[in-house]
Amino acid sequence: MGPPASEQARHPLGNGVDVPSPTSGGTAHVLQGERALATFQTIDMTHKLDGGPAKTKRRRWIMGASRGMELGAQKYHMSREQLLERHVKDFLEIHSSFGQRMGDGKFKPTREEVAWMSEAAMNSGPFWDHYVPFLTALQSQASDEQFAEWGVRAAKLQIIGSYAQTELGHGSNVRGLETLATFDQKADEWVLETPTLTAIKWWPGGLGMLATHAIVYAQLWLHGKCYGVHAFMLQLRDHEHRPLPGIELGELGPKMGDNGHDSGRLRLTGVRVPRSNLLARYQWVTPDGRYEKPEAVASGPSVPLHYSSMLLTRASWVQLAGGQIAKAAMIAVRYSAVRRQGSAGAAVEGAAERQLLDYPVQRRRLLTQVASAYAVKFAARRLLGDVKALEDPHVPVAEKARRMPALGAESGTLKAMATLMAADGIEDLRRCCGGNGYLLSSGIAALSLDDLWHVTAEGDFVVLLLAAARFAVKRLSAEAISSAQAKPSLMNSVEDWMDAEKILEEFRRISAVRFADAAVAVAGAKARGCSEEDALNEAAEQLVAAAAWRGYQIFMEAFWAEATGTASGDEGAADMTPEVRVALLKLCALFGCHVAAQGGAPASLQGGMSSATAPQGFAGQARQRLCQDLRVDAVALVDAFDYEALYEASKLSDQDWSEPFQGYSAFLRPSLDVAYLQKGSLQAAASATALESPEGSLKSPSIAVSQSRL
Amino acid sequence: MGPPASEQARHPLGNGVDVPSPTSGGTAHVLQGERALATFQTIDMTHKLDGGPAKTKRRRWIMGASRGMELGAQKYHMSREQLLERHVKDFLEIHSSFGQRMGDGKFKPTREEVAWMSEAAMNSGPFWDHYVPFLTALQSQASDEQFAEWGVRAAKLQIIGSYAQTELGHGSNVRGLETLATFDQKADEWVLETPTLTAIKWWPGGLGMLATHAIVYAQLWLHGKCYGVHAFMLQLRDHEHRPLPGIELGELGPKMGDNGHDSGRLRLTGVRVPRSNLLARYQWVTPDGRYEKPEAVASGPSVPLHYSSMLLTRASWVQLAGGQIAKAAMIAVRYSAVRRQGSAGAAVEGAAERQLLDYPVQRRRLLTQVASAYAVKFAARRLLGDVKALEDPHVPVAEKARRMPALGAESGTLKAMATLMAADGIEDLRRCCGGNGYLLSSGIAALSLDDLWHVTAEGDFVVLLLAAARFAVKRLSAEAISSAQAKPSLMNSVEDWMDAEKILEEFRRISAVRFADAAVAVAGAKARGCSEEDALNEAAEQLVAAAAWRGYQIFMEAFWAEATGTASGDEGAADMTPEVRVALLKLCALFGCHVAAQGGAPASLQGGMSSATAPQGFAGQARQRLCQDLRVDAVALVDAFDYEALYEASKLSDQDWSEPFQGYSAFLRPSLDVAYLQKGSLQAAASATALESPEGSLKSPSIAVSQSRL
Repeated sequence: MGPPASEQARHPLGNGVDVPSPTSGGTAHVLQGERALATFQTIDMTHKLDGGPAKTKRRRWIMGASRGMELGAQKYHMSREQLLERHVKDFLEIHSSFGQRMGDGKFKPTREEVAWMSEAAMNSGPFWDHYVPFLTALQSQASDEQFAEWGVRAAKLQIIGSYAQTELGHGSNVRGLETLATFDQKADEWVLETPTLTAIKWWPGGLGMLATHAIVYAQLWLHGKCYGVHAFMLQLRDHEHRPLPGIELGELGPKMGDNGHDSGRLRLTGVRVPRSNLLARYQWVTPDGRYEKPEAVASGPSVPLHYSSMLLTRASWVQLAGGQIAKAAMIAVRYSAVRRQGSAGAAVEGAAERQLLDYPVQRRRLLTQVASAYAVKFAARRLLGDVKALEDPHVPVAEKARRMPALGAESGTLKAMATLMAADGIEDLRRCCGGNGYLLSSGIAALSLDDLWHVTAEGDFVVLLLAAARFAVKRLSAEAISSAQAKPSLMNSVEDWMDAEKILEEFRRISAVRFADAAVAVAGAKARGCSEEDALNEAAEQLVAAAAWRGYQIFMEAFWAEATGTASGDEGAADMTPEVRVALLKLCALFGCHVAAQGGAPASLQGGMSSATAPQGFAGQARQRLCQDLRVDAVALVDAFDYEALYEASKLSDQDWSEPFQGYSAFLRPSLDVAYLQKGSLQAAASATALESPEGSLKSPSIAVSQSRL
Repeated sequence: MGPPASEQARHPLGNGVDVPSPTSGGTAHVLQGERALATFQTIDMTHKLDGGPAKTKRRRWIMGASRGMELGAQKYHMSREQLLERHVKDFLEIHSSFGQRMGDGKFKPTREEVAWMSEAAMNSGPFWDHYVPFLTALQSQASDEQFAEWGVRAAKLQIIGSYAQTELGHGSNVRGLETLATFDQKADEWVLETPTLTAIKWWPGGLGMLATHAIVYAQLWLHGKCYGVHAFMLQLRDHEHRPLPGIELGELGPKMGDNGHDSGRLRLTGVRVPRSNLLARYQWVTPDGRYEKPEAVASGPSVPLHYSSMLLTRASWVQLAGGQIAKAAMIAVRYSAVRRQGSAGAAVEGAAERQLLDYPVQRRRLLTQVASAYAVKFAARRLLGDVKALEDPHVPVAEKARRMPALGAESGTLKAMATLMAADGIEDLRRCCGGNGYLLSSGIAALSLDDLWHVTAEGDFVVLLLAAARFAVKRLSAEAISSAQAKPSLMNSVEDWMDAEKILEEFRRISAVRFADAAVAVAGAKARGCSEEDALNEAAEQLVAAAAWRGYQIFMEAFWAEATGTASGDEGAADMTPEVRVALLKLCALFGCHVAAQGGAPASLQGGMSSATAPQGFAGQARQRLCQDLRVDAVALVDAFDYEALYEASKLSDQDWSEPFQGYSAFLRPSLDVAYLQKGSLQAAASATALESPEGSLKSPSIAVSQSRL
């Protein structure tokens, strides 16, 4: 239960080392004390999180690349333009030589490593769009010749790309894009056009300021026939970084966070690019205007193969979400260890203040988010492994096409749930830091803001969950439905809800039941005469709930596999100590009973109502016991994330203000009773002067104070 | 169910008026169409919300004071210093003459009117702290002589005040404050001191930049004895706005939002103020160092009477929370009416896109927040009425002291729940606007950010709920406990959950059951040997849940009273039309079944799985039906809030950036393949030139496009 509440916190002048003073909070010893309580070695847990000691070494090497570039709280005082400048400078400093080697085919970071880089970024910005969606799209959709021209230059940072898909009027529904690419056979060119206000490309990172090129998604029109959305390479800016003719570029304006990232808009008026700018790995147009596909694609199943770049983006966002919850949990747990507070309405006057960590509601809020961070990190590793397997060049295109839909549903579910869990979880952790969490200098405030857009970007969470559920429900047999509905719950005690294996089994059952319920709802609507589409729309609430539960099931599966050392591709499994295993099994069970206790949905899916009203019941009681149990490991569990401390001082604020503030003379001063203020300041001066004279009753007020208390 | 999805949205070039074009989204007709569907007259609902036509008139007059001061999206491009300057300018322009009249006793805005003013503020800032906590504290705690000196000047804006209570190490626990006020009898002065780092005054609005004076809360020490926390008047700055000796002032730095509001810190080193600067309505110190109280207070019950300023602050925050949910709901509902989207995975290629309002999950998220806005607004009116009754000078001090604890618990509960519902609800509404909700220019993003601090400020929500629950649970008789536990639920059908009166009765029952559960948990812990304090801490989860349910009960009570025209002090009850009543009863039931469906249904309290994500449960089904029913009123229900449209363009962003961006030449250009970019731009120029020649195959690409589609 942690060290007993110390008396030190109550005596401002204390009586030893590391006590509160005018220059110290007297808390330097607190975290050391917490660390001594842990039931496992922190480094062992770090190895587990990374996937073995070798990966820890590699991750530290990668994350070390940005050492010395920390902006600290300074970044909250920088303009957007300054943030972008700094991003460009730092990013090129780190990546230029790697980019050259990558372009020459001598270096290729793994997807996991790219995600580590994103996590380590001190000031993230639009180069992410260049290397992740833009380059990934080239890798998957460009022909070899095209890749040699654009891909190699992009890797070497000789051209900078943006990924221009979404439009002002069109987000998740890619098929509804309005941008047109009309083939002009005589000129052997595509005419690119955004014909309406709602067709303007809207949001692409880097488009507004940084990019020289973009991959533009547009409806391909050939001899009066539309072939659907295709990707086209477009040069945006010339060698002096001026927009080319017919291209109107702009930036969308300040956002809630992530302001080093320029978000662009693009209006195209009669812009022409060569016929060969259509990305041509899976189709091309001949000079005489025929639309052709390679044999393997033409004869294979019809699947949007260019979605593979989307799968990768989703997988990295899941990993990033885990990292962001982890960082926020680290700040909030450490803050809650150091911060003490008197209990509200405490009956005993002068009772020692408790550490925030020892308040049950606070402890539960913190530890369940720690559990979420582990769950999301482990699920990200599983998803990255699955996506990597799909990228294997030895897998035939047809096989890839066969696997893609299920992976699309799973990645969409995980992306939706992980980004929701991150957005809601980080915000709750921020609130755990009280008012100070509202200051950007706390670090945790910006974590909350910078990530918030992931919830709705690249697939809104409701849209993704619906799509995943539709996919699953259409494949559900009548037999599967009745067998799911017939299976009873085996959870009959608090102990059942403390057992990770039983919880996993229960989550599988609930997920199946939820899908069965959704299928029944869809069938019911159809029986009442609804079309397939209307029936699916009517059952949307059930479908979303089912997909959310499938997500929780995957998180539990991934967590369980890691805790038991059975995760596929876990190079560190052999190194796991029994102590780490015990702690992970508790944390895994905590994740599960928390999901159950809060009703199986993140607050966002419940309409924004907070889960402050935690229900009791078996799952709730199990959660309470596990939180008591894991209390001693709280600090070690977040230490294991292996981040640098993120606290920064608030002193930098002074540079933003003049004294007196701008507007004082023109507006405030004419209202003030200046004579009265002057009188008051003269009194204060007289009082200070009296103090300095030998008759002054108190030489040094602070000594006087200390004497008066002894 | 709204108008059928129009074909217009699919055809970029359309065939009539108000259709998509390069300069129009073609959506101007949409809201007019929605308004025509409503079942009630919008103005009747506005009157209801305001409390009658006379109040609507008064509110519009008050809110109109800031007309012409709208900053629009421009404010997101202003520095903090510019925001403060503008706040000072605009605030003084509006308030100077009223301030004079208020100081002369000729004008006093009601609490409700003050809250309307806060809602109308275009750029809120630290004058709020001056007029709300500072002036309110003077009204309640200063002696008449003191009020004549400071209160009158404050009302006239001749001195500007801040409210310096919280410290770096001390937030909710006022008794733990470390700032010292030691009486120096010889000098007849108080010595004010912040002896430690954690004692620094931290957060007070206006303290860093604006204020000339502050009310400082400090431990009163007299002849070596501590009398607890008292309030002292301190002049901070002289007639040239320079800090006085011994006073170190600063600003805490950028925050997530609310950045026109300067948040200050204050370090005091041996600062001296006259003995008479102790606020002296309820106690004073004589020249010979005796601590005295007026007769009525000395003989009355021991209650912290200076909490009345806190009650008022809480009440205004509840009202503000209702207003902020309302504004966010207005933006999100209108956006969802105008925005169309193809359904994910829609089977029918080319099917018309639906309005977002016609997607069940989106519709539920929107309408339940509309219901929340109404519930919070009505509860705020009830609370303001109760607090106003307490301010009545005819009520004897002893009677006030008797009423204060219960009102403290109720106001704390409502403040906690309303600010939580606002923070979580506005954020969910923001997400309902997709990616565009992340842009500050959407308006809704800043609504979310600017209000977020209310959740933890002036009493963290967990601390407030705990305090309220402790208060209630200690007064619970054994009889009340067993009678609560014996009462069965009467909710047995979907219809029951569509009936606001039945839901209210059920909420009363659940709230009683929750308090009984909490009392049993406390008693159980005590029986195991826990101290009272430890037992209360151990039962914290149950106590918080009980207080939250009590909060929902109050919201339902207030809503029901307004919907049935039985709210006390409702001047507009007689004017309510039957149509308004019908709509309000539905909305009231929607609020109730949403609360139940999202985690409070009795079935979920008994262990095992909650029905929170079981939309097939009774409450969930009722919610779905009510949302279908209220669909036609969606736009009218938010129109009734009577705010100006908040949409702003994003074009202003351009002013923040240079072209090319800062850092282009120094950092990016050396990396680029300049020759390749130049080659590309020459090609583009050649292509454009070819087009201008008579041989150009397409004169105007956009006409060509339109022809190719016809």
